[in-house]
Amino acid sequence: MVTDSVSFRLPPWFQSALPPVNTPYPSVEERMRLTIELARRHVAMGTGGPFAAGIFDLEDGGRLIAAGVNLVLAATTSIAHAEIVAIALAQQSLGDYDLGRGGRRLELVTSTEPCAMCYGAVPWSGVRSLVCGARRSDAARVGFDEGDKPPDWIAALKRRGIDVRRDVMRRQAAALLEEYGASGAVIYNARQNR
Amino acid sequence: MVTDSVSFRLPPWFQSALPPVNTPYPSVEERMRLTIELARRHVAMGTGGPFAAGIFDLEDGGRLIAAGVNLVLAATTSIAHAEIVAIALAQQSLGDYDLGRGGRRLELVTSTEPCAMCYGAVPWSGVRSLVCGARRSDAARVGFDEGDKPPDWIAALKRRGIDVRRDVMRRQAAALLEEYGASGAVIYNARQNR
Repeated sequence: MVTDSVSFRLPPWFQSALPPVNTPYPSVEERMRLTIELARRHVAMGTGGPFAAGIFDLEDGGRLIAAGVNLVLAATTSIAHAEIVAIALAQQSLGDYDLGRGGRRLELVTSTEPCAMCYGAVPWSGVRSLVCGARRSDAARVGFDEGDKPPDWIAALKRRGIDVRRDVMRRQAAALLEEYGASGAVIYNARQNR
Repeated sequence: MVTDSVSFRLPPWFQSALPPVNTPYPSVEERMRLTIELARRHVAMGTGGPFAAGIFDLEDGGRLIAAGVNLVLAATTSIAHAEIVAIALAQQSLGDYDLGRGGRRLELVTSTEPCAMCYGAVPWSGVRSLVCGARRSDAARVGFDEGDKPPDWIAALKRRGIDVRRDVMRRQAAALLEEYGASGAVIYNARQNR
């Protein structure tokens, strides 16, 4: 094998687009606004697709712990969805593979409802709540395939103690997907190449 | 944020445990035997949990393209399941986020049926077939939570053109899980800490 390690890195502009450390994001709308803004900036800078996710500490005023954008194209791997990037960054940053240890309450905010992979990653991450902007149908309209989640995926997360809230700033989140689709940018999706 | 990149690396012993480049693995049992052996070695070396996965090129004699082991503990991130590691390594190694581009036929072989996250990652990876050793129930008996896949997950993959074969060397794969469980080693699982 050529390589024995995997890595993916946020775009160069990313850190400077983030708020000062400890900036509070007390409302879910404020957390979603930042997340959508990161996705929008990612597209505007030409560094990837229209998806972003953030992990916020609900017990610390909604402080941002880590954020990610979709790095599938930049990092050359289909696993680098925004939610996966944000989860891994938060865990490696805090030094714990379980973000919920000790009763800690972190929230995953994603600009679009998670795909099947990212849905499956949520319980392992240790986050205690999930907030979604655009819906699966908004992404599908533009051509993004979200995969096959269980029909009762929201209830399944709730059974695991993970609260789910959808449609937060959905209109704004869906508008970004529409703009990306209308721009003729690449809709990366393994299936389209077959 | 402390960091803007994610990385995970295979254990130091890993490369030397692999066969010479271009070694053929023409039968599915040979591919599974190597995969289980990597999982066994991972446990024996104390570098992680009893899970491994390999990606093989079916049109090149079953040559190994990339392999991974579960790096959740070593890499401090819940996303680093063996299948995710193998998929990302194969993609970054081949320089393409779609392993199926151009009609290429790669196979993902995993020592235990994929969890909900890894199941969701399969279609995005571009592999054309999935081979599983132990079943979900074998992992659950030891205490590993595999998450909530759709009830018809095998049919869902087949609808996407991905062939699924289960129970290949299941007895051997399940025995490794049993041994790991009996050893009293850590069953890492975010939920148990709540």
